[in-house]
Amino acid sequence: MTDTSLEATGAARVEWIRSRMPLLAAAREELSRTRPFDGRRIGMSLHIEPKTAVLLETLSAGGAEIVGTGNHGSTQDDVVAYLNAYASANGAAPLTLFGRRDDSLEQHHANVARVLDAEPDMLLDNGGDLAAGIVSRGVTASVIGGTEETTSGGDRLRSELAGAVPFPMIVINDSLLKAIGENKHAVGQSVVESFMRITNLMVPGRRFVVFGYGWCGRGVAHYLRALGGKVAVVEIDELKAFEAALDGFRVSTATDLAPWGDVFITATGHPGVLTLEAIELMHDGAVLANCGHFPWEIDVEGLRAVATGSREIIEAVERIDLPSGRHVVLLAGGRMFNLAGKEPKGNSLESMDLGFLLQTLSLERVALDAAALTPGAQPVPDDIDRTIARRMLAAMHASE
Amino acid sequence: MTDTSLEATGAARVEWIRSRMPLLAAAREELSRTRPFDGRRIGMSLHIEPKTAVLLETLSAGGAEIVGTGNHGSTQDDVVAYLNAYASANGAAPLTLFGRRDDSLEQHHANVARVLDAEPDMLLDNGGDLAAGIVSRGVTASVIGGTEETTSGGDRLRSELAGAVPFPMIVINDSLLKAIGENKHAVGQSVVESFMRITNLMVPGRRFVVFGYGWCGRGVAHYLRALGGKVAVVEIDELKAFEAALDGFRVSTATDLAPWGDVFITATGHPGVLTLEAIELMHDGAVLANCGHFPWEIDVEGLRAVATGSREIIEAVERIDLPSGRHVVLLAGGRMFNLAGKEPKGNSLESMDLGFLLQTLSLERVALDAAALTPGAQPVPDDIDRTIARRMLAAMHASE
Amino acid sequence: MTDTSLEATGAARVEWIRSRMPLLAAAREELSRTRPFDGRRIGMSLHIEPKTAVLLETLSAGGAEIVGTGNHGSTQDDVVAYLNAYASANGAAPLTLFGRRDDSLEQHHANVARVLDAEPDMLLDNGGDLAAGIVSRGVTASVIGGTEETTSGGDRLRSELAGAVPFPMIVINDSLLKAIGENKHAVGQSVVESFMRITNLMVPGRRFVVFGYGWCGRGVAHYLRALGGKVAVVEIDELKAFEAALDGFRVSTATDLAPWGDVFITATGHPGVLTLEAIELMHDGAVLANCGHFPWEIDVEGLRAVATGSREIIEAVERIDLPSGRHVVLLAGGRMFNLAGKEPKGNSLESMDLGFLLQTLSLERVALDAAALTPGAQPVPDDIDRTIARRMLAAMHASE
Amino acid sequence: MTDTSLEATGAARVEWIRSRMPLLAAAREELSRTRPFDGRRIGMSLHIEPKTAVLLETLSAGGAEIVGTGNHGSTQDDVVAYLNAYASANGAAPLTLFGRRDDSLEQHHANVARVLDAEPDMLLDNGGDLAAGIVSRGVTASVIGGTEETTSGGDRLRSELAGAVPFPMIVINDSLLKAIGENKHAVGQSVVESFMRITNLMVPGRRFVVFGYGWCGRGVAHYLRALGGKVAVVEIDELKAFEAALDGFRVSTATDLAPWGDVFITATGHPGVLTLEAIELMHDGAVLANCGHFPWEIDVEGLRAVATGSREIIEAVERIDLPSGRHVVLLAGGRMFNLAGKEPKGNSLESMDLGFLLQTLSLERVALDAAALTPGAQPVPDDIDRTIARRMLAAMHASE
Repeated sequence: MTDTSLEATGAARVEWIRSRMPLLAAAREELSRTRPFDGRRIGMSLHIEPKTAVLLETLSAGGAEIVGTGNHGSTQDDVVAYLNAYASANGAAPLTLFGRRDDSLEQHHANVARVLDAEPDMLLDNGGDLAAGIVSRGVTASVIGGTEETTSGGDRLRSELAGAVPFPMIVINDSLLKAIGENKHAVGQSVVESFMRITNLMVPGRRFVVFGYGWCGRGVAHYLRALGGKVAVVEIDELKAFEAALDGFRVSTATDLAPWGDVFITATGHPGVLTLEAIELMHDGAVLANCGHFPWEIDVEGLRAVATGSREIIEAVERIDLPSGRHVVLLAGGRMFNLAGKEPKGNSLESMDLGFLLQTLSLERVALDAAALTPGAQPVPDDIDRTIARRMLAAMHASE
Repeated sequence: MTDTSLEATGAARVEWIRSRMPLLAAAREELSRTRPFDGRRIGMSLHIEPKTAVLLETLSAGGAEIVGTGNHGSTQDDVVAYLNAYASANGAAPLTLFGRRDDSLEQHHANVARVLDAEPDMLLDNGGDLAAGIVSRGVTASVIGGTEETTSGGDRLRSELAGAVPFPMIVINDSLLKAIGENKHAVGQSVVESFMRITNLMVPGRRFVVFGYGWCGRGVAHYLRALGGKVAVVEIDELKAFEAALDGFRVSTATDLAPWGDVFITATGHPGVLTLEAIELMHDGAVLANCGHFPWEIDVEGLRAVATGSREIIEAVERIDLPSGRHVVLLAGGRMFNLAGKEPKGNSLESMDLGFLLQTLSLERVALDAAALTPGAQPVPDDIDRTIARRMLAAMHASE
Repeated sequence: MTDTSLEATGAARVEWIRSRMPLLAAAREELSRTRPFDGRRIGMSLHIEPKTAVLLETLSAGGAEIVGTGNHGSTQDDVVAYLNAYASANGAAPLTLFGRRDDSLEQHHANVARVLDAEPDMLLDNGGDLAAGIVSRGVTASVIGGTEETTSGGDRLRSELAGAVPFPMIVINDSLLKAIGENKHAVGQSVVESFMRITNLMVPGRRFVVFGYGWCGRGVAHYLRALGGKVAVVEIDELKAFEAALDGFRVSTATDLAPWGDVFITATGHPGVLTLEAIELMHDGAVLANCGHFPWEIDVEGLRAVATGSREIIEAVERIDLPSGRHVVLLAGGRMFNLAGKEPKGNSLESMDLGFLLQTLSLERVALDAAALTPGAQPVPDDIDRTIARRMLAAMHASE
Repeated sequence: MTDTSLEATGAARVEWIRSRMPLLAAAREELSRTRPFDGRRIGMSLHIEPKTAVLLETLSAGGAEIVGTGNHGSTQDDVVAYLNAYASANGAAPLTLFGRRDDSLEQHHANVARVLDAEPDMLLDNGGDLAAGIVSRGVTASVIGGTEETTSGGDRLRSELAGAVPFPMIVINDSLLKAIGENKHAVGQSVVESFMRITNLMVPGRRFVVFGYGWCGRGVAHYLRALGGKVAVVEIDELKAFEAALDGFRVSTATDLAPWGDVFITATGHPGVLTLEAIELMHDGAVLANCGHFPWEIDVEGLRAVATGSREIIEAVERIDLPSGRHVVLLAGGRMFNLAGKEPKGNSLESMDLGFLLQTLSLERVALDAAALTPGAQPVPDDIDRTIARRMLAAMHASE
C-alpha cells in the first residue's frame, strides 16, 4: 500500500472507534479550549492501534507535541501513517511516531532512543521503558513527570528504579476504575467472545477450568458461568480461593481438575501455572488458552519439547500431539488469545475510553500541577478517579 | 484460485469442524457398516459451508449418492470443490454439487432444476423448494420421502403443498431438541458473540431492546442479561409477554422503549416489527440488528427512503442519517447479523452436530421404513429425538 | 379460642393478603356489578387458608351462594370462622364451610357428603372429589359445570370419570400461566426460602441434587444456582435431561450423585424416586426434602424400616440414624417442606392471585356460557388465559 | 418456665446448630488438647443466642473461665440457662452469664459492671463496651488483650479510646473473610429469605431499590436480581456507583427512583438515607425495609411525625398512612428486618461458624503470644485468615 492509502485506511478505522469514545470526545473539546499541554512535548511508548489514535488526538488537541513509538511487533502501520499526517492536517503541534510492525528488536530499541533524543518533558510510558532510558542517560531537570500504563511498569518504578526517578509518575493501572471497568468486565467479555469466535464451540454445559481468581480470572469465571458453562477455579492464594468457593465455584488443584476439564484458561499473571504434568492428565482434545498479559502461563516450551507433532488447523488453533497418543489444542500459541484471530477487537471501546481518560486527566494534572505530586510511582489522584466515575455514569446513562 | 487449491482450502476448513462433531462421527462409523442408503440418490438443497460438508460425508458413508445445490448467494466455493472431489477420493457413490457463490438467481434456479433432473428418490429439502419442484413436474412414484430443514418449509408443506406430496417429509426444525439446542442456546450465544465482535461495544450496563420472546428471543434476552446488559422485551403475544415479565424483564411496546434503548435486536420471524415510527423516536446513534431468519423484521426500506445519507463505517456497520439530524447504526443491512463480518461462525459446532444428526437419522428412517410414516409434513419421530438426546448427553459428558 | 376471637384472628390474617391480591380486587369490583353468579350455588372443595378466603369473597361478591369444605387435615379454623360470618356481615348469599383442622377422615368424608347434599349447581373441585361424588350419586341435570384445581383431578376426569361427567369441568392447573407463574417461579422461590428458613444453612457453594426437571424442578434448580448453589439434576426423561444439560446443569443418576450431594430435593410427581439404595450411599448428615405435591417421592417408609433411631431436632428437621453409623436429615417428614415450619407462607401472594383469577373467570364462563363448552375435562379457554396475562402485566407494572 | 425446662429448651436448640458448625467442632477438639486458655478468665459482651453458645463451649473446652453478659434486649434466656449449667456438667472452668431478655437498661449496665468486677484478663468485646469500661476504671496490668467483634467497636478503639488501651484488641469484622462470607453472601441471602418469609410477596419482576453498594448492599442487589427482581441502586460514593453501573444495575438518586420502586431496602450504615421527601414520592403501598446494623437508615421518626395513622397488619408488617392519602408498609419498624418475625434465623450457620472461628483463633493468639501483637485495635493476623480460609474450603468440600 502507498502511504496515502495506508493513511486513508487508518483514518477509516479510527472513525467508528472515535464516535464511540464519548469520554475522550468531551475531554478533547475541553482541552482544545484550556490547552494544558501548550509548549509541552510528550514522549510516548504505547501499543499503537486505532483506539490509541483517539488518545493521541485528544492530547494533541490540548496543545501537546507528541513523539513516540509503539510496542515491538504490534504496531499497526496504517494507524501510524494516519497519525503522522494528523498534526499538519489539523494545524496542531507536531505528532511524530516511529516504528513499523516488521521492525527488528534492534530497530525498536533505536525507536525508543529516538523518542528520548527528542528530549520530551513529559512521559506516557509503558513498562517503564522511557523512565529507565532517562535514568540510564542521566536525568536532567527537563522532565516534569508523566504516566505509566502498566502494573509491571509501576513495579519497576518501585523496585529497580526506586529513588532514581525524581519526577512524579502516575500509574494508571492501579486505579480501581481500571480494575473494575477493564480487568473484570472487559477482559471477561473479550474472553468469552474470543472463545466463541475462534473455536466456534458452545459454552453451555462445557467444563472450563480458570486459573487465577484475581480481577481478570473473576471476570472470566463469572461470564463463562453466566453463559451456562460449568466452571472450576484453580487458585493458590487461600483468600481468593475462599472467595471463589463462596461465589459458588468448584475450587481445586490443576492436577485434580485436569481430567475433568475440557477448556483451560490461565489468568494469573504468573509463569508456568499450567504445567506439562497437568496437561498430560487431560482428556483427548482438551483446549488450552491464556488471557494473561505475558505468554508464559502455559508451559508451551515444555509442551513442545515432548510433542510428537503439531500443526495449525485453523487460524489461532493449533493441534499438538502428545506421546500418550492424545492431543491438546492450543489457542494463539499461548499468547493472549483474546487478541488473536482475523478480527481481534480486544477490550471494549468503552473500557478503553475509560482507561485513556485516566491517562489524559493524569497527564493534565502533571502538566498543571506536578509540584503537588510526589516523586516516583503513585496512584491516580482520588479526585481524578471520582471525576471520571461521574462522567462514565453519565455517558452510560446509568440512571435509565 | 485453482480448483485444486480451492479443494485444499475447503478440506482444511472442514477438518476442525469434523473433529468437533462427535455425533456425526459416531453416525458415520455406524452407517458405513449398516449402509442404509445403498442404492439411494438423495437430492439436496441446503446452505453449503464446512459444517454441511460433514453431514454429506456422513450420508455418503452410509451409501448415498448425493446430488445437490446450495442456497442462492451463500454457497462457499471451496467447500463445493472439496465435496465434488470427495466421493471419488473415498470410493463412495457420486456426490455432485452445483452452484457457486456468484451465481445469478437464474443460474440458481437452473441448479435446482438439475437436481430434480437427476431424479433423486429421497429429498434433503430446505424451504420446500425441491418438494415444490417435484409437485410442479408431476410427482412420480420414485420419491420415497425425505426431510425438510426449516419451519417455513414445513409451513409450505402444510399449506401450499398440503395433500400434494404423497411421500413423508420429516420437518427437522419442529424437533424440541432443535428449539432448545439451537434456537435458544446457540442463537442466543452467537448473537452476543457477534454483537461484541462486530461493534466492539461493551454489554454491561448497555440498554438492549429484544423484539420477540420465542425460542430465539428468549435466548438472546437471557444471554444479554447474563452478561450484564439491561434488557427490555417487546412482545405482542400476551402469553409470551407474561413469561418475559415473570422472567424479570421489562416488557413494553416499541414506541415506549424506543427513546430508552441503545441497541434494538429483532427475533420475531415477522416482517416490519421494528418500524420507522419507532426508529424516529430513538436517541442519536442507536444500533439496529436482526437475528431472525428473514431480512424483513427491521423496516430497512422505509428507513432508507427517509435517510438523508448513509455509508458503511466498518464492515457490517452502516451509519444512516435521519432527517431529524440524528443517526442510527444498522448492522449487516438488517440481515442476520450473527452471520456477518469477516469471521462469521454462526451457530456452535455442537448445535449443528445435533441438527445434522436429526437429519441423518430421519433420512435413515425414511430409507428403511418410509411405509411406517404418514405422507406429507410430520415431526421427527419421538424415538429418534430420544436417541439423539441420549447421545448428546453422553457427548457432552453431562454427568461430570 | 372463642368463635368470635377465632373470627377476628382470621379477619386480621386475611387483610394483608387481600391488600396484595390486586387481580382479585379488580374482579371483585367488577363481579359485584355484573353478578354472574346470582342464584348459583357453588359446591367447593379446596384447601382453606387466608388466600382462599379472598377467592371466596370474590365469588360471593359476584352473587354466589357457597357451600364447601377444606382438605383433610389442613383446614385453618380461624379462616373458617371468619368466612362463615362473612356473608351475613356483607349481606351476601350464604357462605357455609364445614370442617375443622382436627377432623377425622370419617368426619371429612361426611363434610364432603354435606356439600353434595346441598345440591350445588356449580363445582369448585379439587382432586375430583366432588365430581366423583356426584357421579356415584347419579348425576342430575342440576349441575351446569365447574372447575378442577389440580392436574391429578384433571387426570381422574379423563380416566376414571371419562364419559361419566356430562357437564364441563375446566382444569385450572393445565393453564400455561399456572405452569409459569406458579410452578416455575413461585415454587422455585418458596423452596429456596423454606430451605434457608427451616435449616438456616447457607446456599452458596452447597451441593444440591434436584430430582425432576419439569416446571417445578426447573424452577428449583435455577433459583438454587442463582443463589450460588452447585446444582445437579436427576431426570429419567431424555428430553428434559437434555434441556437440563444445555441449561448448564450436571445431569446424572441418583446413585452417581448420592455420594456427591449434600441436599437432595425431589420434584418429580412420582413415587419412590429417592430410594433407600441411594440414601445409603450419601455422606453423613445429608439433607432430604420433597417439594412435590404427594409425600411419596422419598422412600420414607423404607428409610424408617432400616433406621436405628430418629428424632426431631428442631421443628420440621428430623435426624434419622442409619445402620451404617451415618445419619440423614429429613425435612418435614417427606411432605412438601415448603409448607412446613412455624411460618409457612407457601407460594407468593401474586401467584395465588393469578391462580384464583383463573378460577374466578373460568367459573364465570361456566355460569354465563356453559353451553359453549364441551362436557368433561378441558383447558382454560384461550381468551381467559390472554385476558389474565394482560391484567397481570398491568398489575406487575411490567413496562416500568 | 422453670430453670430446668429453660435449660432443656436451650440445650435442644443448640444441638442442631452445633452439628452444623464444623469449624468450631474441630477447634473444640483441638483446644481441648492444647488448652491455651488454662487459667484465663475471658470477659465477654456478645449477643446471646444458640450460635453464641457453640463459641462459648469451644472457648470453655480450651480451658477458659468465662464471665459475660448479652446485648441489651436480645438475650435469649433459655440459652443463658443452658450455658450457666454447662460448665459444671462438663467439668470445665466456670462459665457465668448475667442478664435476661427483660432487663432494664440500668440492669444491663449493672451486668456489664459485674463482668468487669470479675477482673477478666482477656476480653471478648462488642462495640467497645468492655474496653471502655476498663479504661474508665483505670487500666491495670491484668488484661493481656482481646477481640472486638464489630467495626463500630473498632472505630471506637481507634478514635475515642486511641492510645488509652495498652493491650492488643483484634478487630474481627475487619477480616476480608467476614466481608465476603458474612456481609456479602450471608446478609444478601438472609435479606431475600426474610423478604419472602415476612411479606409472602414474589420477587420476579418486582422493582427493588437498594440503598448502598458496600459489601452488604452488593450482596442484596445481586441476590434479588438473581431471583428475577428488577434492581436499582442508590449510592452517593462515585466509585461504588460506578461499580454498580458496570455490574449492570440502574444507578440513580432516591428521588428519581422513589416513584419507580416498589420495595426500598437500606444497607448503607448511614442515618437518614431514606428520607421523608423520597417516601412522599412513592406509589401507594411501597414497602420500606432496612438491613443495616442500626435502625436509623430510614427516617422513621420523620415518617411517624407526618403519618395520619398506622397499625401492624401482620407480624413485622406495619401500614403507615400518609397525608397524601397513600400509605407505605414498614417492615420491622426500620430495624434489621432480616432478624424479625417468628422464625428469625439471621445469618447462615456456616457464616457464623466462620466468624466465631475468627474469634477463637484470635483469642488463642492473644493468650499464647500477646507480646507479638501491637497495643490497640488491629486486624486479624494474616496467617489466621489464611488458616481459616483453608479450613473453610475443606469444610465446604469446595473441590467437589
